[in-house]
Amino acid sequence: MSDFAAPDKNQLETFPNPRPGRDFTIEIICPEFTSLCPKTGHPDFGTITFRYIPGEVCVELKSLKLYLQRFRNEGSFYEAVTNRLLDDFVAVANPKRLEIKGAFTPRGGITTNVTVIHEGIQ
Amino acid sequence: MSDFAAPDKNQLETFPNPRPGRDFTIEIICPEFTSLCPKTGHPDFGTITFRYIPGEVCVELKSLKLYLQRFRNEGSFYEAVTNRLLDDFVAVANPKRLEIKGAFTPRGGITTNVTVIHEGIQ
Amino acid sequence: MSDFAAPDKNQLETFPNPRPGRDFTIEIICPEFTSLCPKTGHPDFGTITFRYIPGEVCVELKSLKLYLQRFRNEGSFYEAVTNRLLDDFVAVANPKRLEIKGAFTPRGGITTNVTVIHEGIQ
Amino acid sequence: MSDFAAPDKNQLETFPNPRPGRDFTIEIICPEFTSLCPKTGHPDFGTITFRYIPGEVCVELKSLKLYLQRFRNEGSFYEAVTNRLLDDFVAVANPKRLEIKGAFTPRGGITTNVTVIHEGIQ
Amino acid sequence: MSDFAAPDKNQLETFPNPRPGRDFTIEIICPEFTSLCPKTGHPDFGTITFRYIPGEVCVELKSLKLYLQRFRNEGSFYEAVTNRLLDDFVAVANPKRLEIKGAFTPRGGITTNVTVIHEGIQ
Amino acid sequence: MSDFAAPDKNQLETFPNPRPGRDFTIEIICPEFTSLCPKTGHPDFGTITFRYIPGEVCVELKSLKLYLQRFRNEGSFYEAVTNRLLDDFVAVANPKRLEIKGAFTPRGGITTNVTVIHEGIQ
Amino acid sequence: MSDFAAPDKNQLETFPNPRPGRDFTIEIICPEFTSLCPKTGHPDFGTITFRYIPGEVCVELKSLKLYLQRFRNEGSFYEAVTNRLLDDFVAVANPKRLEIKGAFTPRGGITTNVTVIHEGIQ
Amino acid sequence: MSDFAAPDKNQLETFPNPRPGRDFTIEIICPEFTSLCPKTGHPDFGTITFRYIPGEVCVELKSLKLYLQRFRNEGSFYEAVTNRLLDDFVAVANPKRLEIKGAFTPRGGITTNVTVIHEGIQ
Amino acid sequence: MSDFAAPDKNQLETFPNPRPGRDFTIEIICPEFTSLCPKTGHPDFGTITFRYIPGEVCVELKSLKLYLQRFRNEGSFYEAVTNRLLDDFVAVANPKRLEIKGAFTPRGGITTNVTVIHEGIQ
Amino acid sequence: MSDFAAPDKNQLETFPNPRPGRDFTIEIICPEFTSLCPKTGHPDFGTITFRYIPGEVCVELKSLKLYLQRFRNEGSFYEAVTNRLLDDFVAVANPKRLEIKGAFTPRGGITTNVTVIHEGIQ
Repeated sequence: MSDFAAPDKNQLETFPNPRPGRDFTIEIICPEFTSLCPKTGHPDFGTITFRYIPGEVCVELKSLKLYLQRFRNEGSFYEAVTNRLLDDFVAVANPKRLEIKGAFTPRGGITTNVTVIHEGIQ
Repeated sequence: MSDFAAPDKNQLETFPNPRPGRDFTIEIICPEFTSLCPKTGHPDFGTITFRYIPGEVCVELKSLKLYLQRFRNEGSFYEAVTNRLLDDFVAVANPKRLEIKGAFTPRGGITTNVTVIHEGIQ
Repeated sequence: MSDFAAPDKNQLETFPNPRPGRDFTIEIICPEFTSLCPKTGHPDFGTITFRYIPGEVCVELKSLKLYLQRFRNEGSFYEAVTNRLLDDFVAVANPKRLEIKGAFTPRGGITTNVTVIHEGIQ
Repeated sequence: MSDFAAPDKNQLETFPNPRPGRDFTIEIICPEFTSLCPKTGHPDFGTITFRYIPGEVCVELKSLKLYLQRFRNEGSFYEAVTNRLLDDFVAVANPKRLEIKGAFTPRGGITTNVTVIHEGIQ
Repeated sequence: MSDFAAPDKNQLETFPNPRPGRDFTIEIICPEFTSLCPKTGHPDFGTITFRYIPGEVCVELKSLKLYLQRFRNEGSFYEAVTNRLLDDFVAVANPKRLEIKGAFTPRGGITTNVTVIHEGIQ
Repeated sequence: MSDFAAPDKNQLETFPNPRPGRDFTIEIICPEFTSLCPKTGHPDFGTITFRYIPGEVCVELKSLKLYLQRFRNEGSFYEAVTNRLLDDFVAVANPKRLEIKGAFTPRGGITTNVTVIHEGIQ
Repeated sequence: MSDFAAPDKNQLETFPNPRPGRDFTIEIICPEFTSLCPKTGHPDFGTITFRYIPGEVCVELKSLKLYLQRFRNEGSFYEAVTNRLLDDFVAVANPKRLEIKGAFTPRGGITTNVTVIHEGIQ
Repeated sequence: MSDFAAPDKNQLETFPNPRPGRDFTIEIICPEFTSLCPKTGHPDFGTITFRYIPGEVCVELKSLKLYLQRFRNEGSFYEAVTNRLLDDFVAVANPKRLEIKGAFTPRGGITTNVTVIHEGIQ
Repeated sequence: MSDFAAPDKNQLETFPNPRPGRDFTIEIICPEFTSLCPKTGHPDFGTITFRYIPGEVCVELKSLKLYLQRFRNEGSFYEAVTNRLLDDFVAVANPKRLEIKGAFTPRGGITTNVTVIHEGIQ
Repeated sequence: MSDFAAPDKNQLETFPNPRPGRDFTIEIICPEFTSLCPKTGHPDFGTITFRYIPGEVCVELKSLKLYLQRFRNEGSFYEAVTNRLLDDFVAVANPKRLEIKGAFTPRGGITTNVTVIHEGIQ
C-alpha cells in the first residue's frame, strides 16, 4: 500500500480568512508526524505545532494533514525539516506571523525540539 | 425533542457592572460546546473560554449558556464560529477587552485552537 | 442542518471476528456523547466506554459512531441510556462479555457514572 | 448550630509588617469558601486567593478565616463578592498592591473565575 | 438567607429501577459537602461518593443534592455522618449493595477518609 | 528512501533465557507503532505493549524494533494486527505467557485499545 | 521552645465507635511526620498513613496528632518506628484490622516505604 | 537527642564563585523545612526555595542544610522567618540578586506562601 | 576518579529484623541505577525497586547503595542484571518474599521493564 | 569495561546551519547526565538542557551524547560543570545565544538547579 509521493507545498490548500481585518491566532497541533532519519533510515516521530496569524488566507486542515503524511517516507533532519515546513507554509499562505515547533521523540536518551518563527509584514 | 433554534445574539442578557469604575477580569469556561461540521454534518466539540473586562454591563451566565446551546444544530467552521462569538458578545456587552479561545477536540489526529481578541476603548 | 433521526440498533454494523477461537478484549472510548435531559431539555454530555470480548462478530467503529451521534437530540436519563446501549450492542453483536461505563459531566455539583455488565455464554 | 452573623470587615485583624521598608508578597489560598446564590438559595463554592504586598500592616490569618466563614449564609453574586472582598481588605490593611482571584466550581457546565486588582500608592 | 432545616431521610426521592432484573452500578460523586465540627463550630468540607447497585428503586439526584445541602448547618463527626448517610440511603432505597466514602479536607495537617459498606440481600 | 518490506516473523531473533528455571516478566513498551488503514490508506498510530514470561528464549529488542518498523507501509485493522503480533511472537519465542495491548490514537473522536493474551503450557 | 517529651502511647485518646456492629474503614493520612536519624542525628521526614477497622473504640484525631509530634526529637529507624506505631495503636484501640504505611523522603537518592499490618480477631 | 541550637547566619559557609565575571542563577529547593508556631507551639512545615545570582561567593549546600535544620525548635511566623532567611543569606553571601519563597503547608484550610526579593548592586 | 570495583554481594550488610515474628513489607526505590550495555559500551539507566518481607535480617540501606553504585562500570543486560540483583539479595538476606523491578529508560524508542520474584519459605 | 576518558570539547562535532540567515531555536534535553561528587566520590545525576540559536554551525547530537558520557567518571561540582559545558559549547559552535540548565537530583533532601546563559553577538 506504500504509495506516498514526496511532499509538495502545492498540496496545501487555502480558504479566505473569514475576518481579514482582525488579527487572530490559529494553533494546529499534529502529534502524528513521522519521517525517516537520513543517516540510519530508521523512522523518526514527533509533534509539529503551527501557530499563525492568517493574512488573506487560512490553511485548510485536511490538505495540511495530507501534506504532512507525505513526509512518511522522506529522509529529513530535525533542523532542516522544521525550517522547510515554515518555508512551504509561508510560500502558500503568507501569514502575518507563523511559529512552528517540532518536538521529536527521544533518541539515544536525548530529546530535541526545534522552534522556527516567521514574522510577516503586519 | 430537537427544537433548538439558530443562535441569536439577542439571547445574551446583561446586568449592570457592580464596580464600573474598576477594571477587573471575568473568565467563563464552557467545556460543553458542540456544533456541526458544515462539510460532513458530523458533530464537532470544544471548550470555549471567554475572558473579559466588563464595561458598563456584565453578561448573565445562564443566558450565555442558552445562547451557546443553540449552536448544537448549527453548521460552523472553527475559525468563523470563534470570530462570530466575539462579534456577538461585543455587540451586546461592549467590554473594555475580550479574549475568546475555542479549543476543539482532535479530528484526523489534528487538534485546532482559535484565539480572537477584541480591544475596546479603555 | 439538524436531521439526526432517532438512534436505531440496526445502525450497528459488524464484521467477522478475526480470531473467533481466542478470547480477546476490545475497548472503545467515546468521549463525545451528548443527549438531552428529559426533564429540562438541556444537553447532557459524557464519555461512553465499551469493553467487550467478541463472539462471532466485532462491531464496526464508524457505524458505532453514527449510532451514538443519533442520541444528540434524544431525551434520555443516565441510568436508562446506559442500559439501552448495552441492550442494543448485545442484540446486534452477541459478545461473550460486555461492560459499558457512562461517565457524565457534573450537574448541580454532582457527577454520575453508570456501569452495566453483560455476561454472555462463554 | 447555625449562628454565623453577616461578614464584617471589622473582623479582619492586622499586625505590624515585620519588614516595612521592603516590598514582599504574601499569597493566601482559601479553598473552602462557600456562600449562597441570591437567585436560587443554593450553596456556591470556590477558592479565594489573596496576593498582596503589605503596607504598614499584614492581615492576621485566623481573623481572615473567620471573616470568610461568615459568607456561609450570605447571598452573593460571583462578581460582586470578589469586589467586596477587595474593598474590605483594602479598607482594613491598605496594602501597596492586592490581587484577589475567586475561582468558583462549575454550574450548568460553566466555570467562572473573577480577578480583581487594587494598586495602592507605592 | 440561612433557612436550611435539619437533613431528613424523607427528602430522598426515588424512581423505579429501569432494569430491575440486571445488577448495575451507579456512582454519584458529591464534592461540595459541608457541615460543622461539633467541637469547634467551624465548617468542615469533604467529598461524598455513593456507589450502589439499585434494588427496586434508584435515588433521584436532585433530591439527594437537597438532602446533602441540609448538613450545611449541622454539627457532625466524620465517622458518624458517613454512617448516617448510609443508614438514610438504605432506609429509603434498599439497594442490593451500597458503599459510601467520605473524603474530608485536611485539619491540623491530617486528612481523614471514612468508608462504609452495606451489603443487602442479593 | 521507502524500502520497508512486509513484516516477517522470521525477523524476530531470540537469545537463551538467562534464568530458565525461574518465571519472571519482561514488559516491552513500543510507542512508535504505525501502519496504514486498509480502508482509507491513511496512517494509523499506536503504542504496542508486550508483557511476557519467557520460556527457553527471550526476544532480542533490536530485532523486535525492526520487525515492528515493517508495519509502516502495511494495511492492517486494529483487531487483526494485535492478534497477528501475538501469533508471530508465540511462533518464534514460545513464551509461558504473553499479553499484548495495542492502544491506538483517536479516530473520529473514538479511541480503541485491543488486548490479546496467550497462555502457554506452564 | 523545644519541650517535646518522648512519645507515649497513653497520649492516644479514644471515643466509642459510633456503629460498633458494622465494619467500616477509617483512613488517616499524616504527611507531617518527622523524627531524627539515630546514626547521624539529622532529621528524617515522611508521611504516615493509618487505615483501620475500629473495634469498640476509634482513635481521636487531635490526640494522634500530638502523639506523632512527640517523635520530633526522637531517634528512630524507619523499620522500627513503623512497627512501634502499630504496636502503640493496637495496645490502645484494639482495632479489628490496622495497616500502617510509612513513606519516607529520599536519602542518598533512595526512597524507603515500610508497610505493617495487624489482623485482629474479627 | 534534641540538641539543635538556635540558627545562626555564621553557620552559612561560602566558596569562591567559579565564574565571577558571568551572571548565572543557582536555585536551591529545600522541601524539609520545619519550625514551631510561636502562638501554639505546634510544628509548621514548608518548602524554602532560594534563587540567586552569586556575587563573589556561592553558599555551600551542606552548611545551608545545617543552618535550616536549626529552625526545628525555633518559634517563627511565616512572614518574619522568610525575611530573616533573606537577611542572613545576604549578610553572608552578598548575592547580586536573591529571591526566597517560603511555601507553607495548609493550616485551618488555608495555605500561605511568602516571597521576598533582594536586589543587590549589579 | 574512576575506581569502582565490580559489585560483590558481600557488600550487602544486614541488621536484625526489629519484629521477626511479624510479616511486614519494606520497599526500597533506587532511581539512580546505571550500568553499561555489553554490546555498545554505552551507559544504560534505570530505576530498581526492591519490595521484600524480611526474614531474620533486613538489608542496610547505605550498603545497598554502595553495592548498586558498583554496577556503574559493569556490562549487563536488563534481563540478566535484574535476576542477579535478586540472587545476591536472597543469598545475603534470605527474605520471606522479594520482588525486584528494573525499569529502564527508552532505547530506540522502546522501554523495557523486568520483574523478578523470589518466594521464600513462609 | 570502564574506559571513559576525560571529556574534551574537541569531541563536539558540528554541521553547517541549514538556515544561517534565520534565527531559530534548538532545544536538546539530556536526562542521563552523571558525574562524581569531588568531595565524596559518590555519583551525581541530573538533566542537562541546552537551548541555543545556532550561528554558522549546529552541534551534532551523537557527538554531544558521547561528550556528555565522558563526565561519567569525572569529579565535578554542580556550579562549575554547568559553566564548563557552556564554555565548551561556545568555543566549538559559537552560537548567537545559548542557555544551559543543569537540574540535579536531590541530595540530603535538597535539590539544586544551575542556569547559565551566553549572549553572543547577534
